[in-house]
Amino acid sequence: MFLETIKETNDIKKIDKTNWNALAEEIRQFLIEKISVTGGHLGSNLGVVELTMALHLSLNLPEDKIVWDVGHQSYTHKILTGRKDKFDTLRQYHGMSGFPKRKESDCDVFDTGHSSTSISAALGLVKARDIRGEHRTIVSVIGDGSLTGGMAYEALNNASKLETNFIIILNDNNMSISENVGGVSKYLNNIRTATGYLDLKKGIYNALLGTKVGNNTINGIRRAKSSFKQLVIPGMFFEDMGITYLGPVDGHDIAGLVKVINEAKRVEGPVLIHVMTQKGKGYEPAERHPARFHGAEPFAVETGLPLKNRTEPNYTDVFSTIMCKLGQRDEKVVAITAAMPDGTGLKRFRNRFPDRFFDVGIAEEHAVTFAAGLAAGGMKPVVAIYSSFLQRAYDQIVHDVCIQNLPVVFAIDRAGLVGSDGETHQGIFDLSYLTGIPNMTVCAPKNMWELSDMIKFAVSYERPIAIRYPRGLAYSGLKEFREPVSLGRAEWIYREKEIALFALGSMVRTAEAVREELRKKGFGVSLINARFAKPIDEEAVLEACRDHRLIVTMEENVAAGGYGEKVLACINAHRLPNACLTVSIPDEYVEHGNVELLKQKLGIDCAGIVDKVEQMLEKLKQE
Amino acid sequence: MFLETIKETNDIKKIDKTNWNALAEEIRQFLIEKISVTGGHLGSNLGVVELTMALHLSLNLPEDKIVWDVGHQSYTHKILTGRKDKFDTLRQYHGMSGFPKRKESDCDVFDTGHSSTSISAALGLVKARDIRGEHRTIVSVIGDGSLTGGMAYEALNNASKLETNFIIILNDNNMSISENVGGVSKYLNNIRTATGYLDLKKGIYNALLGTKVGNNTINGIRRAKSSFKQLVIPGMFFEDMGITYLGPVDGHDIAGLVKVINEAKRVEGPVLIHVMTQKGKGYEPAERHPARFHGAEPFAVETGLPLKNRTEPNYTDVFSTIMCKLGQRDEKVVAITAAMPDGTGLKRFRNRFPDRFFDVGIAEEHAVTFAAGLAAGGMKPVVAIYSSFLQRAYDQIVHDVCIQNLPVVFAIDRAGLVGSDGETHQGIFDLSYLTGIPNMTVCAPKNMWELSDMIKFAVSYERPIAIRYPRGLAYSGLKEFREPVSLGRAEWIYREKEIALFALGSMVRTAEAVREELRKKGFGVSLINARFAKPIDEEAVLEACRDHRLIVTMEENVAAGGYGEKVLACINAHRLPNACLTVSIPDEYVEHGNVELLKQKLGIDCAGIVDKVEQMLEKLKQE
Repeated sequence: MFLETIKETNDIKKIDKTNWNALAEEIRQFLIEKISVTGGHLGSNLGVVELTMALHLSLNLPEDKIVWDVGHQSYTHKILTGRKDKFDTLRQYHGMSGFPKRKESDCDVFDTGHSSTSISAALGLVKARDIRGEHRTIVSVIGDGSLTGGMAYEALNNASKLETNFIIILNDNNMSISENVGGVSKYLNNIRTATGYLDLKKGIYNALLGTKVGNNTINGIRRAKSSFKQLVIPGMFFEDMGITYLGPVDGHDIAGLVKVINEAKRVEGPVLIHVMTQKGKGYEPAERHPARFHGAEPFAVETGLPLKNRTEPNYTDVFSTIMCKLGQRDEKVVAITAAMPDGTGLKRFRNRFPDRFFDVGIAEEHAVTFAAGLAAGGMKPVVAIYSSFLQRAYDQIVHDVCIQNLPVVFAIDRAGLVGSDGETHQGIFDLSYLTGIPNMTVCAPKNMWELSDMIKFAVSYERPIAIRYPRGLAYSGLKEFREPVSLGRAEWIYREKEIALFALGSMVRTAEAVREELRKKGFGVSLINARFAKPIDEEAVLEACRDHRLIVTMEENVAAGGYGEKVLACINAHRLPNACLTVSIPDEYVEHGNVELLKQKLGIDCAGIVDKVEQMLEKLKQE
Repeated sequence: MFLETIKETNDIKKIDKTNWNALAEEIRQFLIEKISVTGGHLGSNLGVVELTMALHLSLNLPEDKIVWDVGHQSYTHKILTGRKDKFDTLRQYHGMSGFPKRKESDCDVFDTGHSSTSISAALGLVKARDIRGEHRTIVSVIGDGSLTGGMAYEALNNASKLETNFIIILNDNNMSISENVGGVSKYLNNIRTATGYLDLKKGIYNALLGTKVGNNTINGIRRAKSSFKQLVIPGMFFEDMGITYLGPVDGHDIAGLVKVINEAKRVEGPVLIHVMTQKGKGYEPAERHPARFHGAEPFAVETGLPLKNRTEPNYTDVFSTIMCKLGQRDEKVVAITAAMPDGTGLKRFRNRFPDRFFDVGIAEEHAVTFAAGLAAGGMKPVVAIYSSFLQRAYDQIVHDVCIQNLPVVFAIDRAGLVGSDGETHQGIFDLSYLTGIPNMTVCAPKNMWELSDMIKFAVSYERPIAIRYPRGLAYSGLKEFREPVSLGRAEWIYREKEIALFALGSMVRTAEAVREELRKKGFGVSLINARFAKPIDEEAVLEACRDHRLIVTMEENVAAGGYGEKVLACINAHRLPNACLTVSIPDEYVEHGNVELLKQKLGIDCAGIVDKVEQMLEKLKQE
């Protein structure tokens, strides 16, 4: 009823204060209904309905600017900026993104997807505003989980020097993706429970005042600068850094939020508003199972249960199982995750071996160097981080793991195309950034059994090694091909002559289909499971070059620095005349959408590859 | 006299307490004398002589373990662990490293070089110790500057959960490489000046005690958990996180340090000792010019002045000059450094345009996303970070700059081999990790004029772009070749037939020499200044392929993902028969040493390349 009247930015301002809560309720129902069909981030969005409304009521968009940390909580913001009707296309190819996108709206000021960037980005906008002499309010909204990421702290450290207005909203739901971790969490918890601090302040002051000792003490406190403030204000962590602290505030009280935001706008300098919200607020299944409803598949609204019941295992499950086995077998095996015990499948390892499991929070840099330390101390650490998030720890892999050649295993889930999360989450660079590093070994399994075998191999390998595997169901084909994993050795699957397909990881399955198509057309086609992207199996390449006119490489990674270029370099180094076709992801960011559809659009599905091969054969004919 | 008796680890324990200061003085003189000849990190080492002695006196090495953050301050540690006699080879090829190296000593437990890693690494050692049920003391020594790096904070956040002993020594010299930045610096400063806090504590307690209001308040304080502690203890920042704080302590009082370290060993849980030291302590020129003596060239002990007076500009100077010009010309040009205003040459820009200059501290991740925010706000940011340190911000370049195609300019100094700092500092990966990123452009100048031209080009380019240039003197040859810089276009320098040398950046100079040698041997040799590593000039490659049998690429970068592989891919894509020789740095970490010598050892100097070309020509003859 009220939601119908929200057609464009600032329409919310026409709604009477007495109807704010009704609108919030309508938005909530809208989100539950839509996301139950499309899938998406439900819990975090239900948590910030009122906060987002309050921001839109207090600010003047698009002149004022909101930077959403991670950005998966921007659905209400999208509704309030005229994108309500696009929710049926949420996270679908050419549909609306699940994250802020500058292309979509002038109210989306900075694209996000990874954690802990919002304060840095907003600080850039603040400085640009000041240099240009503009006047606008700039806000970043960051969750308590994102505060465990080091760069948020680097940004806070820099924000503290500001002498102009900048609002940081700490959206504290006491739970990022999973539980929070460490000192900051503990500290925020202390604030949450420090009730009655204003009474306290009064009490101390009165007690001190009027007595001689008391007066001296008050003077002493003043001399000691911030100490008195620190006694009586929660948030001294932030105040210590020079950031004005307001809160904690009830994140579901719209009027209260509007008031505190307006107050914050008047502060000269950085100000942090500590807002308490509940993840999944208003939808019981999401309140009860926050991890499940973080990034939800389509579900039944009544029960909260997923519409599709998965019966086959995905790669994460396979990893989960083998890790428990290895943990049982060898007490030196330890596991590290960066806030993803569920997503990486390490939850079972945690439950069985709590002393050898470490969730470091959203802190990929620390995760990797910590693992290096564990390895230097004699352990066999397995670090499980998604491909696109591991980008955060590139230097730590170069500098802390590989220089010392330490036996750290990287289990890289979500490698290759990930689908609906889009550009920020596609794992299409890992082969490039990892294979350039000396002492590093990189491999990828063709199916579920090979993932197990590779993890086993890796844990016993005693040098840095990365195993990359895709999101989603584990391939269960080619079960009969299970040659033992051996460093840098590929696996010949089918041997013919004419065309040799060297496929890495997930592309082996595609290569099977490509082979069938090409055989139908009368070609002889060999299929080689590449297994290792570094070191590549040069012997297999040379062998193939002997009786195959055309070598085709296939990988779910960008071309530059990928597997194909290494095969090409090998062929070139030996001055072989064979033609080489490298199939990879084009040099562009890949948007959200169904993975199969994306592969088709990128020309790396079966049909696209067959086309490319035929074109190449045509070209060869003309030589 | 006492120093002579220090021959191996723990020899220091035989020296009587009354002679500790004399030994410290001898070590100091030894360091000044040796470093004045070899060059090296002087200031930081003079600052920690007593601290290092105290650690060696209190700990039992090698059973106990010290992780040195950055590691450039480990010289006294090297002296005390039997490496005194190797100081004449400091930072020279096959000589002693200027950083901790596990290969050198069992007392070097973790290799470092980049900042802010020590707490993460030590925490790994601590957890490994606990899992193995061992008992040893583990210490990390971290400077206040390193605390501005986010991963140190990620580690502190994780350390706070520990229930076993772990000692963090905060070596606070109020100055990392340059000045410190931001909230943490401010906070530490408050601690330093908060004298008499114990008196204060007593005063408040007495004033409160015995009055009714007072008693209620004390109870209230107890209910509010940590507030009272926070009033009276400096270091509440750390205490808030669950880390016991001891200090501040005089970092030049050996007996005092020994006492507090022994105290810290008894704490169950993480403990931070705040030690105040003076950078350059005991050598006046280093005390007065801390930045100059951070990483010093050989100098005259009496005056502190460098032995060689540089008259020619290095690339950093050229960058410095053009940035001032551009800053003058365009008010949108802003400059960002991560704690390197001197090293990057941005100091002059800072002095002229203080409002448009930002030193964010040792915080490369924040630096890049902050720049992205500035760009989104309409500025033209230039981020100047050394090649190996920019590795820290790989994800921010992928995720915050390039997805949004924001006009951020990366000025990458110290690209290629850097020399005496060795493995951790060689800038040999940037072409690989940058050229794989969509929307990114990467170039490298052949000489000083081209660096200016490229920076100018970049600032007006309006998309992400990186310019990489080497450490050291700027090449002033080939002055007459100054074709305007144009996106993705190479520059033909000499045109002949037979062999075409495609050289990138610093390798153009080497290519000139290679060309001379090959011409002497009777070959026709063209020289092409590649300029762009992404996009490469495919037209120039195709043109060269028409009348050159052999294409040679030359770059100061590893092969995987580098410039050569792109040229090779181009030749392959066009099915051209030309031979291609890619000259690059082998797939290995490169140790410290003179750059010319390193190039020779790696086979990428003139003689090495001529050899490779001749071998290739020989091979071609046999085809």
